[in-house]
Amino acid sequence: MSQPGRRTQEWDVRASTLARNTHNLIRSIVENLTVEPNPSKPFIALSVGDPTTFGNLNPPEQVLQAVRESIELHTSRGYGPAKGHQEAREAVAEYSAHQGNVTAEDVILCSGCSHAIELVISVLADSGQNILVPRPGFMIYKTLAEGLGIVIKYYKLLPDKQWMVDLDDLENQIDEDTAAIIVINPSNPCGSVYNKDHLNEILDIASRNRVPIIADEIYEHFVFSGNEFTAISSLSKDVPVLTCSGLTKRFLVPGWRLGWIIIHDRHNILGKEVRNGLANLATRILGPSTLIQRALPAILKYTPQSFFDEVVLFIEVSGRFHETTIPNQAKMAYEELLRAPGLRPIMPQGAMYMMIEIKISHFPEFKNDLQFVERMVSEQSVFCLPGRVLNRYLKKPGLRPIMPQGAMYMMIEIKISHFPEFKNDLQFVERMVSEQSVFCLPGRCFEYPNFMRIVLTVPEDILREACQRLVIFCKEHIDIGEKCKEIDNN
Amino acid sequence: MSQPGRRTQEWDVRASTLARNTHNLIRSIVENLTVEPNPSKPFIALSVGDPTTFGNLNPPEQVLQAVRESIELHTSRGYGPAKGHQEAREAVAEYSAHQGNVTAEDVILCSGCSHAIELVISVLADSGQNILVPRPGFMIYKTLAEGLGIVIKYYKLLPDKQWMVDLDDLENQIDEDTAAIIVINPSNPCGSVYNKDHLNEILDIASRNRVPIIADEIYEHFVFSGNEFTAISSLSKDVPVLTCSGLTKRFLVPGWRLGWIIIHDRHNILGKEVRNGLANLATRILGPSTLIQRALPAILKYTPQSFFDEVVLFIEVSGRFHETTIPNQAKMAYEELLRAPGLRPIMPQGAMYMMIEIKISHFPEFKNDLQFVERMVSEQSVFCLPGRVLNRYLKKPGLRPIMPQGAMYMMIEIKISHFPEFKNDLQFVERMVSEQSVFCLPGRCFEYPNFMRIVLTVPEDILREACQRLVIFCKEHIDIGEKCKEIDNN
Ligand SMILES: Cc1ncc(COP(=O)(O)O)c(C=O)c1O
Ligand SMILES: Cc1ncc(COP(=O)(O)O)c(C=O)c1O
Repeated sequence: MSQPGRRTQEWDVRASTLARNTHNLIRSIVENLTVEPNPSKPFIALSVGDPTTFGNLNPPEQVLQAVRESIELHTSRGYGPAKGHQEAREAVAEYSAHQGNVTAEDVILCSGCSHAIELVISVLADSGQNILVPRPGFMIYKTLAEGLGIVIKYYKLLPDKQWMVDLDDLENQIDEDTAAIIVINPSNPCGSVYNKDHLNEILDIASRNRVPIIADEIYEHFVFSGNEFTAISSLSKDVPVLTCSGLTKRFLVPGWRLGWIIIHDRHNILGKEVRNGLANLATRILGPSTLIQRALPAILKYTPQSFFDEVVLFIEVSGRFHETTIPNQAKMAYEELLRAPGLRPIMPQGAMYMMIEIKISHFPEFKNDLQFVERMVSEQSVFCLPGRVLNRYLKKPGLRPIMPQGAMYMMIEIKISHFPEFKNDLQFVERMVSEQSVFCLPGRCFEYPNFMRIVLTVPEDILREACQRLVIFCKEHIDIGEKCKEIDNN
Repeated sequence: MSQPGRRTQEWDVRASTLARNTHNLIRSIVENLTVEPNPSKPFIALSVGDPTTFGNLNPPEQVLQAVRESIELHTSRGYGPAKGHQEAREAVAEYSAHQGNVTAEDVILCSGCSHAIELVISVLADSGQNILVPRPGFMIYKTLAEGLGIVIKYYKLLPDKQWMVDLDDLENQIDEDTAAIIVINPSNPCGSVYNKDHLNEILDIASRNRVPIIADEIYEHFVFSGNEFTAISSLSKDVPVLTCSGLTKRFLVPGWRLGWIIIHDRHNILGKEVRNGLANLATRILGPSTLIQRALPAILKYTPQSFFDEVVLFIEVSGRFHETTIPNQAKMAYEELLRAPGLRPIMPQGAMYMMIEIKISHFPEFKNDLQFVERMVSEQSVFCLPGRVLNRYLKKPGLRPIMPQGAMYMMIEIKISHFPEFKNDLQFVERMVSEQSVFCLPGRCFEYPNFMRIVLTVPEDILREACQRLVIFCKEHIDIGEKCKEIDNN
């Protein structure tokens, strides 16, 4: 303690260490974009993970109705308990039964999943301790931890193995100061979905090393056909798991700021201290709006499964789910296409997407699959861009898209050495804004340079337009050598 | 950094220092009350500062309508900017013009006033620095600061001078590590309202010592007749003021979690660093629900002044504002009372409350003003409990209520030495719960032992009942000596 004494010098007010060390890379890039888009082309933002941006995806009527009814309730205006209203927590417990044995006592409501993450990080880690974060990964962890002096250590994901965890690297990162392992599944930005075996491998490491897991499952159930979502908590035998989720993505209401923590602790390892610690932290700002809390039971109960299915299908395939005749269309298209020389349609497994092999040598008009797909797309075919087709479409010299299995993003590698004009991913995406008015998040937002992330929740025609511009941009900037190779190859 | 190495010992997961050092005294007393109320008496909570608890005070129709309309807006669901939507911040700037020259750039929307306070404390103070907090005062400051290692130092308020600041004490507390002075005006729990002269005295100290002010004005405009509210920022010549407020109290929607920070910094002392620091901190959890943000312009614009006037009158006087004939009733009552021997009514200045001197010697039936008021009250007189009458009513041996000038609380001193059974205010209020089922917050919630705080937003009949029980309780527990004195005095 310093001595009492007047401060009569000049004014000198500094920002705290916490404030100076809090950086939200996505927000600062998105909210402070200085590059002007090309005025001749309408701006297309494939940047923020906000499925509501374009107006094509809307929360179901049941969700809106639940809030309409909540407004009229006298009890939707007063303070709630710091952890949230009992009925709302019970509803979350029931909704989350797939995660394991969950009761209202295990649930803490938060102001968005970000706030849930803030609480779980800050209950487990002290200044000087570290948390292990996947790279590439959503960087809210860095934003929230570094200001508090909590160290971020990265473990690798393997782009060539559908972004699975590099298990050796993960285990090597653990040290005596490791307070938690973060597992983001399904992943932002990778769109990967881990199967049970892989989740068990991660749990084994956590168990052997006695490190609790923070499971960021805000994209729970967002999985494309052929994949299955498993909550890591449901597989854990001993490892305490703090799961963070919320309404944000699945119910298409990111702005409502309704998230939650679920405490999974079968062997009572966290004990009273961590539970009380979370309860203490919840009293700082008193959780989410009670207007939404009161609507929560109805939201979770009455939203029909068909709504979720349609949204995921849209993301996987493209935005045609309003046409209920689609499955038939797909079948019809399949049969039509069977007759088309040079094409080999593969009947969709799930409901609505279709892979088509293009026997390119049969189409002398087109030099390559890109030209083919471009023409096909411009003629408004029933085949749509996102998912597998998008993946193919963008597989151009200089770019390497990696097919997602869930969530709502796709990562695209930028082979930056092929673009001599650009030093890094940031320069690449900035120039893309100024020339093509298309804005993707640079990989550095995920601590993963020379990638970019696009969102898949965009309406089909806009996404197509954006991808076409993206391909033009690459063609214009790729170095001569690669251009020649491309021509040679065809 | 410690060496990498497996942790193969037993599980041992601790809560962080932040979590262990975050204590919300009010919440922990209110949410963990273990004392059982007397089953033969309905429980009355005069504890939480939630004006909506009893259902007698409701937000105005305009506020509800604004949210009803917001639900239907596509734009009320997506993420907003971290500082809040531009139009909402503009609306707050306009609403806060009485605070000085405010633009949208000076406004940051937060998840309740608590969150606003969290941001302003944590942007100004580093671990090891201190902030000066009034005692008695609302202790969210302690809750939010101590976990971050920020030291709380108290400056005294003077109960005998309407809780004005002990200026010498304030200045004496300032040292080189003082990062901010907190001024809560109108005050929770004191109900005091500072006039311009006093605010200027506080500003002088801040200016001389170069310490910025955090102004907690969540009760702005909550002032009883004869008092005037002045925003401290409007008087500041050089001192930077960060003002925290929100919808919570004035619009009767504490659960909606909509607060804000307004940055007042005429001489640009805070500079970019503190402004950017606040913006950084706002990206941690992304502010309040956009559902309410979208409604905010209409809420602030269309709520009629009459609504505010009625609420404040209710708090000052009692709950009769629905009867529009009241002013006449008051007048009629006044004239009636003029004819009543032994009473001297004093015509209300504002609109609806009335002070009546009881010439007690003229009423041989009653030993004292308490008996008189009790009988009067039990006969459903037009005169109501809160405010000045309540003050009188509770001025009993062992208790000393202090008349508030605003906000929605009254502090009552418990002369604990007169109650030999109780060691402290906590024991006092706990026993009051178990015997009388009346729950008031003990002064320790405000770092002010041997006081208790009651809320004034309770319906008249319930508040009357509570006060009667409170008086019975005192009579039953006051020591013999005081009892005799009381009898002697009458
Ligand atoms: C993996 C992940 N976790 C957490 C969040 C934050 O969610 P919320 O908006 O509910 O705070 C996001 C948002 O994009 C995310 O992608
Ligand atoms: C003086 C004071 N400041 C701040 C707050 C917190 O307000 P909010 O509920 O908007 O977080 C309160 C609530 O009682 C208060 O009394």
